[in-house]
Amino acid sequence: MSPPSGDRDAHLRETHQSRETLLTGGFLEVRRDTVALPDGSRATREFILHPGAVAVIPLLDDGPDPQLVLVRQHRYPIDRVMLEWPAGKREAGEPTIACARRELLEETGYTAAEWAWAGWIHNAPAYSSEDIALWFARGLVPGPARPDVGEFVETQVMRLSALQALDARGELTDVKTLIGLHWLQAALSGHRSWSWASTEKVCDVA
Amino acid sequence: MSPPSGDRDAHLRETHQSRETLLTGGFLEVRRDTVALPDGSRATREFILHPGAVAVIPLLDDGPDPQLVLVRQHRYPIDRVMLEWPAGKREAGEPTIACARRELLEETGYTAAEWAWAGWIHNAPAYSSEDIALWFARGLVPGPARPDVGEFVETQVMRLSALQALDARGELTDVKTLIGLHWLQAALSGHRSWSWASTEKVCDVA
Repeated sequence: MSPPSGDRDAHLRETHQSRETLLTGGFLEVRRDTVALPDGSRATREFILHPGAVAVIPLLDDGPDPQLVLVRQHRYPIDRVMLEWPAGKREAGEPTIACARRELLEETGYTAAEWAWAGWIHNAPAYSSEDIALWFARGLVPGPARPDVGEFVETQVMRLSALQALDARGELTDVKTLIGLHWLQAALSGHRSWSWASTEKVCDVA
Repeated sequence: MSPPSGDRDAHLRETHQSRETLLTGGFLEVRRDTVALPDGSRATREFILHPGAVAVIPLLDDGPDPQLVLVRQHRYPIDRVMLEWPAGKREAGEPTIACARRELLEETGYTAAEWAWAGWIHNAPAYSSEDIALWFARGLVPGPARPDVGEFVETQVMRLSALQALDARGELTDVKTLIGLHWLQAALSGHRSWSWASTEKVCDVA
């Protein structure tokens, strides 16, 4: 993690000096690294080591106001039932497209004939290494959901216009869901390119 | 945290049973709660207790393609220099508007004459209690930045159209920044209401 010479961001960059594992929980792993600041002084950075996640934006039709597949799920740390895209953590080494197919199937029962890459997001870069890969999915075939043990999730099908109305009222607060909506609007209006490929031919980006 | 009787989300809701503090770091506090699942079985939930944060979307002019004030900052957990709205953690009990004024001043040196509420977002509801309050700011007066000790941040002024171009190329990945852009576009095009108040009269929402 030494910066390359000629690094134009050398005046901003923090470089790794040493590492300590603060916590290995059943779910969370927390690290404390000592870093060198740009002025040469030392500081510590505590953060969660996260394997990354995916979220899927599933379209049930190709119209201008498509039906979308979302899930509702209680999120204990904020004690709210949230409306979200189907999503989940990547397993170690799992390609994002494989995780996207798995989570869509587990949480909603749908399988998709075609996929288009949406983009990467960083949701808590101050204290988590998590990145989230967003994929669009279409050509959906329904089936039974297969939630993990201890996972209580319900599917909610909703038109784009209804999701936009929730957003305009400030009722949509999950970041991956807001950004997926933002990118879906941009793609449908021609302001963002998307490129569909069949499930057999889609290339992973991870 | 017991659900109200007649709770329409009782089939999704997890209820608190007991609590354990796993880590009290210099920066992060991690808790493990035992919860009752909707089917009565027990599970544990590990998450970060976070005081919440704010982000500010600062507009330098009122035109259709305004100049915006952003900051560039190295985010160690993902080892990237990120382009973001000025932002920071709330202090205990700090109103979001007070934190917004403080962070805008500390990171960029600007003070704002008027503020408009943008919205709440939840950036990691699976494992953090963090919420982020977003505010629009205008009527900006420049001054010297006052970064915290050990904070290396540089201001970058950029037109909305340039930020939209970065987004279209997939180069904008910070969630609060993407969502602030999404809401700014919606407000400027009349799809989202905003209501400006002077700094003296603005009401907090926290």
